[in-house]
Amino acid sequence: MQKNDEHRYAVGIDFGGTFIKMALVSDDGVILARRRIPTGELPDRASWMDAMADGIRALAAQGPGDEPVSLVGVGIGVPGFVDFDRGHIFELTNVPGWSGVPLAALLEDKLGLRVRVDNDVNVMATGECTFGAGRTYQHAVFLTLGTGVGGALLINNRIYRGAHFMAGEIGHMTIDMNGVPGPMGRGCLELYAGNRRIVERALRYLEEGRESSLATLCEGDRSRIDPLMIENAAEQGDALSVTVYDEVADCLAAALASVTYLIQPQAFIIGGGVGQSGPVLYDPLHRHVRERLSPYFADRLEIRKAALGNDAGVIGGATMVLLE
Amino acid sequence: MQKNDEHRYAVGIDFGGTFIKMALVSDDGVILARRRIPTGELPDRASWMDAMADGIRALAAQGPGDEPVSLVGVGIGVPGFVDFDRGHIFELTNVPGWSGVPLAALLEDKLGLRVRVDNDVNVMATGECTFGAGRTYQHAVFLTLGTGVGGALLINNRIYRGAHFMAGEIGHMTIDMNGVPGPMGRGCLELYAGNRRIVERALRYLEEGRESSLATLCEGDRSRIDPLMIENAAEQGDALSVTVYDEVADCLAAALASVTYLIQPQAFIIGGGVGQSGPVLYDPLHRHVRERLSPYFADRLEIRKAALGNDAGVIGGATMVLLE
Repeated sequence: MQKNDEHRYAVGIDFGGTFIKMALVSDDGVILARRRIPTGELPDRASWMDAMADGIRALAAQGPGDEPVSLVGVGIGVPGFVDFDRGHIFELTNVPGWSGVPLAALLEDKLGLRVRVDNDVNVMATGECTFGAGRTYQHAVFLTLGTGVGGALLINNRIYRGAHFMAGEIGHMTIDMNGVPGPMGRGCLELYAGNRRIVERALRYLEEGRESSLATLCEGDRSRIDPLMIENAAEQGDALSVTVYDEVADCLAAALASVTYLIQPQAFIIGGGVGQSGPVLYDPLHRHVRERLSPYFADRLEIRKAALGNDAGVIGGATMVLLE
Repeated sequence: MQKNDEHRYAVGIDFGGTFIKMALVSDDGVILARRRIPTGELPDRASWMDAMADGIRALAAQGPGDEPVSLVGVGIGVPGFVDFDRGHIFELTNVPGWSGVPLAALLEDKLGLRVRVDNDVNVMATGECTFGAGRTYQHAVFLTLGTGVGGALLINNRIYRGAHFMAGEIGHMTIDMNGVPGPMGRGCLELYAGNRRIVERALRYLEEGRESSLATLCEGDRSRIDPLMIENAAEQGDALSVTVYDEVADCLAAALASVTYLIQPQAFIIGGGVGQSGPVLYDPLHRHVRERLSPYFADRLEIRKAALGNDAGVIGGATMVLLE
């Protein structure tokens, strides 16, 4: 049996609209125990706070050999804007009732433990850049490709949050200054490479009458088409689907080239659902990034798939506290 | 008379294709003496090195009250790629014979003084962000608008050079992914907002037959039209010239919005010839940046004109050494 004092432990929390995922994590990035709380059962914020506190105490009892451990603290990733220094949530877009909440202070009072709160993408990046695909880099950019396109920056081996904690919004970078208008500006990457936009590209080609195995795969119901179905079709050689992923890859490449010219990271680490794609995404992505960069920059850049999957949030949350 | 030991002194050098500009600078950013060497008179690299060494010694004799001072060191800005840690010039595009030169080591040997070498835009940014328009910021982006569009990043109050000293190339960022092809990628800012492109816009409108006071101002010789002439015409209400600056400002705004979403600086500091423009540039620039950013970001961003003019290079060079 491992002695408790060989390692330090923290709880990482991935605070989502559907579940609160929690884990006890050691300072070598290993998950020892997990809990998952469906938030639909929690009527108000006080109930959420109680459920989190109970969960944290329960996890602290599940150390190595099912012995209790003392926690260094708790790190929480939330989907929104956060004042990281104060652990204060400015705004959670998709989780009602949590804007303007001093979450770290409230939970510190309740638990008597150090609590850190950050934007969920920064937290995942902390996990990936400590224990995942970014662990060997001091300068990296983490991207999530999903409903939206999120980003986080590792500069001099630390998450860089900008002047007011809002840096890393790669999804809002302009790739076409006269392009699609949106709430964050015109021609933003997210309006070309978000999940729904990937599907819309495929639907547009289908409506133009182009042939595709998607017509069969969706069994006549085009609302069933999602990025994974398009990826699978592309892998099997469906030309329409290959084109869709090539176009999405080029939009991503335009943003990645801009990021590279501006801050020259060693690597991009790509997570999120679409980030888990295979060569259908990554082959054209590598090619287009190289087309869009001078060789001086292209030769000094890596593009890697995130390695921690859905655990990036809880590992990153705990790591955020353990690294301090 | 000021006592020598109240201040520390260094020599800053602005290493250009036409002149080597040098100055003795105190640690409060004041220039005490200057020298300017026309490089056309220097037959080879050894002559350049001798001229620089002589100039540095002469400047060190011109401290307060024309008393000699002891120098902390020498800081040099060069127009090209530099390994800042080693003071090694990788490549100077427009100055023949200086690629692959360990300038810092050579000059340190010659002088027995500490020598730092960096890219000229980083050096100007050091000057502006210490003693000029950026002196109150910890996070800022410095731009030069001239023949090309250069950039440098101040992050946590230090110049950030990226993984391999090449960060800050704002001029190569994509503003239109399907736009003008160039050596650094497609649709790069510099291909829309460099000096020549500003003039080309005006010429294109003239060739389309649009009326403009430029036709008179250039006295029938369109090759005389330059950005300053267009700016002057715009200031006097010439509609064509106003349009040109509005378009250039919008191209800049697209890049500035992308930079802001990515790294959220407190401010942009804009230097270079076109950066010295008046409201003709800055009014539409402010307006377009605001259109292209969410209010959360726009409300927390300043855009300021560089303050040190042509002295930014020599002040920045000296400051680079004095700050260490």
